Amino acid sequence: MSKNLPGWKDKALFTPGPLTTSMTVKQAMLRDLGSRDSDFIEIVKEIRIRLVELCANLEEYTAILVPGSGTYGIEATLTSVIPPDGKLLLIINGAYGTRMLKIAETYKIPSVKFTTIENTQPSAHMIDMLLIEEPTITHIAVVHCETTSGIINPIEEYGIIARKHHCVYIVDAMSSFGAYPIDMKECGIDFLISSSNKCIEGTPGFSFVIANKNTLKGTSGFARTMSLDLFAQWQGLESNGQFRFTPPTHSILAFYQALQELEMEGGIAGRQERYQSNYQIAITEMTNMGFKPYVEEKSRGYIITSFYYPDHPNFNFPDFYQYLHEKGFVIYPGKLSHADCFRLGHIGRISSADVRSLMLAISETLKELNISSLEKVEV
Amino acid sequence: MSKNLPGWKDKALFTPGPLTTSMTVKQAMLRDLGSRDSDFIEIVKEIRIRLVELCANLEEYTAILVPGSGTYGIEATLTSVIPPDGKLLLIINGAYGTRMLKIAETYKIPSVKFTTIENTQPSAHMIDMLLIEEPTITHIAVVHCETTSGIINPIEEYGIIARKHHCVYIVDAMSSFGAYPIDMKECGIDFLISSSNKCIEGTPGFSFVIANKNTLKGTSGFARTMSLDLFAQWQGLESNGQFRFTPPTHSILAFYQALQELEMEGGIAGRQERYQSNYQIAITEMTNMGFKPYVEEKSRGYIITSFYYPDHPNFNFPDFYQYLHEKGFVIYPGKLSHADCFRLGHIGRISSADVRSLMLAISETLKELNISSLEKVEV
Repeated sequence: MSKNLPGWKDKALFTPGPLTTSMTVKQAMLRDLGSRDSDFIEIVKEIRIRLVELCANLEEYTAILVPGSGTYGIEATLTSVIPPDGKLLLIINGAYGTRMLKIAETYKIPSVKFTTIENTQPSAHMIDMLLIEEPTITHIAVVHCETTSGIINPIEEYGIIARKHHCVYIVDAMSSFGAYPIDMKECGIDFLISSSNKCIEGTPGFSFVIANKNTLKGTSGFARTMSLDLFAQWQGLESNGQFRFTPPTHSILAFYQALQELEMEGGIAGRQERYQSNYQIAITEMTNMGFKPYVEEKSRGYIITSFYYPDHPNFNFPDFYQYLHEKGFVIYPGKLSHADCFRLGHIGRISSADVRSLMLAISETLKELNISSLEKVEV
Repeated sequence: MSKNLPGWKDKALFTPGPLTTSMTVKQAMLRDLGSRDSDFIEIVKEIRIRLVELCANLEEYTAILVPGSGTYGIEATLTSVIPPDGKLLLIINGAYGTRMLKIAETYKIPSVKFTTIENTQPSAHMIDMLLIEEPTITHIAVVHCETTSGIINPIEEYGIIARKHHCVYIVDAMSSFGAYPIDMKECGIDFLISSSNKCIEGTPGFSFVIANKNTLKGTSGFARTMSLDLFAQWQGLESNGQFRFTPPTHSILAFYQALQELEMEGGIAGRQERYQSNYQIAITEMTNMGFKPYVEEKSRGYIITSFYYPDHPNFNFPDFYQYLHEKGFVIYPGKLSHADCFRLGHIGRISSADVRSLMLAISETLKELNISSLEKVEV
């Protein structure tokens, strides 16, 4: 581990998270605050307000922090807001939709799935048809940006269908929140889940749920776990501003700084612009080199892009990964069920210059692997 | 929040956690590592080895990291290792024992409780009697140091009883691990749970479970949750060194540094010495000032001490807390069910000098509250 000497420059992360964060965000963790002390309680309060303000109004919506990874936030929501006689429709086109199904199965929550192939947006019209046929469905859940492929699902369209059928609407906005503008009220979203180490550019440690207060108030007693009881967590935060159990204080301090830096960047619009620019450079350069994206342009997001393994005898992913690693870049393996892809993330504290450096490194790596030319593709 | 300006010196924490940590531990968080990257995987592997070595042998025991607070680790264990036809005996003398009961109730895990008052060690002999009467009990769980009062429970004695009745033995060593020497094999402990932000002096973010491999191997399929599935988490870490879901990378880096600093301090023995000294100064000075400890000396630990509110008309805890807060010290409220107490923690990166400063501040605060003399007590 000689490369891990203190002071060694860390590799740039082109992953879906944990991401590269700013030094000032990390420096916010150089403090120890008591989790039940007023100094800390004030910061938590402020974070909860700012989170709601990013996507909704404070009268009707509230934010709940859930220690643990993003999946904990999903599990907390699914196991806390669906009543014993509820029935869940899962709209699935990737690993994170499938993960929600596994959660429902683990807790024996009655559920129906609507699945499409990973590069295809599930059709709102067909979901409408399904709901007409299955009137007992009470809740709908979908992933906004499926990190599996990078596809963006039309959460506004599903919201209209959810409202039409009087279903509670749950959106996993893990990797999109902070980068895509979302209006919860306009989309009819009741529960939106994301995580500290995604597009807000904090460090990992907790997930958060932004909830419609009225819907949330009706969920008392539904929770199937203790630690992930969303209603109890909300009650705790509302009553005295404290977490029920020790929160990740340092990660929360970093997140508070990250929210301020989001504001300095011009809010979600400003961040969106940088990420879009990162994405544009990557997609242009990568296709110029002959790499082919997995998702077609109209549904492709600017969070993360899946590229097919090039059809060249000298290409193998472990070497490709390792060569880039040695050059100081961390890319991400694929997660598709039926296609060999790798992924490049465009989010986190990375700039156009960083993306250009990565592109240069990829170009060099191809040469080192004796891959002189990849078939050029149209995007 | 003018007092929270960057660079402002943080208050010293005399709490049960999150604790004051060293600056070098916090500085270890000034890095961003990819959670699926080899650099990070190596660190996780090393942490898991070092944790086992602190209390057991590597052939028979393994360590599993569970993102989230300490309670998540408890919930993960109770909901992952007890079979559907199992029955749990909970030995309870405080809020954390009661919390385990609530977890069991939430998941409808059949359980029996053996409860004593919060300043009394539950009798191993009576537990033996209970197990003779209730031969269907398969698992026993107890808290080592009940942070509620600061009492230390005789986990070795319970271990003998557990072995005699062929019960799986679970110990919540949340606030004792790293400060009290524990030999898992000698105590017959199958599962020991603690947290990153206690006596190892890391930052909050995850709990960890040290498990007897043979017992753990027999728990496949028992888990009642997805995120807190201990067996699956272990399998994930064993198969490719990775977490199933995004881990708190920064908190893990801090923990790795904290483990090295524990070693530098002379391991558990060295740390024990410092904490004992902190405790000794506090108990001597506090009783000299007339404060009365809640737990009698023979079962009192050196992790945290509960003191009765003094019986003086001018004493009220909110003022006492606030005056100390303004002087730069964070103490901890009480949590007892039947007595008014506050608590002073002796753990974390605090020295004899810090404890002496706190004692001086308490003495000054008494004067400011016009409490000239408290009735002197015998300890």
